[in-house]
Amino acid sequence: MGNEISRLISRFLTLTDEEAIAFEECIPIKTYKKGEILLKEGQVSRDSYFVIKGCVRKYYIIEGDERTTEFYVEDESVASLQSYMNKTPANHYFECIEDCMLAVLNYNKEQELFKRVPKYETLCRMSMESAFGDQQEAISKFITSNPETRYKDLLEKRPDLLQRVPQYHLASYLGIKPESLSRIRKRLTSKK
Amino acid sequence: MGNEISRLISRFLTLTDEEAIAFEECIPIKTYKKGEILLKEGQVSRDSYFVIKGCVRKYYIIEGDERTTEFYVEDESVASLQSYMNKTPANHYFECIEDCMLAVLNYNKEQELFKRVPKYETLCRMSMESAFGDQQEAISKFITSNPETRYKDLLEKRPDLLQRVPQYHLASYLGIKPESLSRIRKRLTSKK
Repeated sequence: MGNEISRLISRFLTLTDEEAIAFEECIPIKTYKKGEILLKEGQVSRDSYFVIKGCVRKYYIIEGDERTTEFYVEDESVASLQSYMNKTPANHYFECIEDCMLAVLNYNKEQELFKRVPKYETLCRMSMESAFGDQQEAISKFITSNPETRYKDLLEKRPDLLQRVPQYHLASYLGIKPESLSRIRKRLTSKK
Repeated sequence: MGNEISRLISRFLTLTDEEAIAFEECIPIKTYKKGEILLKEGQVSRDSYFVIKGCVRKYYIIEGDERTTEFYVEDESVASLQSYMNKTPANHYFECIEDCMLAVLNYNKEQELFKRVPKYETLCRMSMESAFGDQQEAISKFITSNPETRYKDLLEKRPDLLQRVPQYHLASYLGIKPESLSRIRKRLTSKK
């Protein structure tokens, strides 16, 4: 298990033995059961995660209802950045909706890593730019689309999600009721 | 004008004379007239911007209609990250909706800066984390709210925008028609 993280990082950076050890010391890999909660509303987020295997859901509780706003799968980062950086209470939840294997990035350990492996900062900046760019697209898509086009977009861009995620989470993510999602699916099937 | 950028950067980093020169050589400050287009759909974005003064609007053209998805004001970064990083055509526009003074970050010049002033990368990573965190909140808010709560949220968090931005752009940003925005405003005023 110990070498898993340096194998992962080696996909992006060439590491000396010393640097590989720094990663192994600072970024443990842990397993979580389906249903485990990684972060609760009101908690300060001390850890961020990188998904090696599994699926994590982000949701809010609004007037008693769970509202799903994101799913994170393999090779994606799970972070509540405002809470993680400013040490403020999170206003949402992270839940493992499958058994998960996650690389755990603790805030203090990450600062240590920036010192021990300066090029890790370049990797962070670049992966952040990329994830930020993806999110810019996502928010623009959400603002400029309706639930049906959003669903078609998911079909095209993230077909894996449609297989992995329960329908009621998916409906919540699309901002509609499960019945409306069923209607959209039927309409699209009958058009084929 | 030449020292403007090093004064700006000095708010975040302590600079040697040599580093200040690097910034002045790599990040020019330019002025733009209200109505100028910084980026068009179909163009590859070679430049990102940091707003020193003014307001920039991001919009899409969807089925012939302009759909506004963001406003950027003082101390905010304006970047079409997917296009800027991957050299792919942008799918949206950036327009100055006031006379603007912007720091211009050219992609190639920025790579040069990372070499000449390594701590600039730390600044970029941290400001990116912060902007990314803000955007995570924004997208979650958008997904979990309706136009009226979105408007109230703007009133509370970005009251300056309501003063600066034409009503029809604001309505588009909220995802509603200008008539609906008028109704929301009337309803909120009569509640007071």
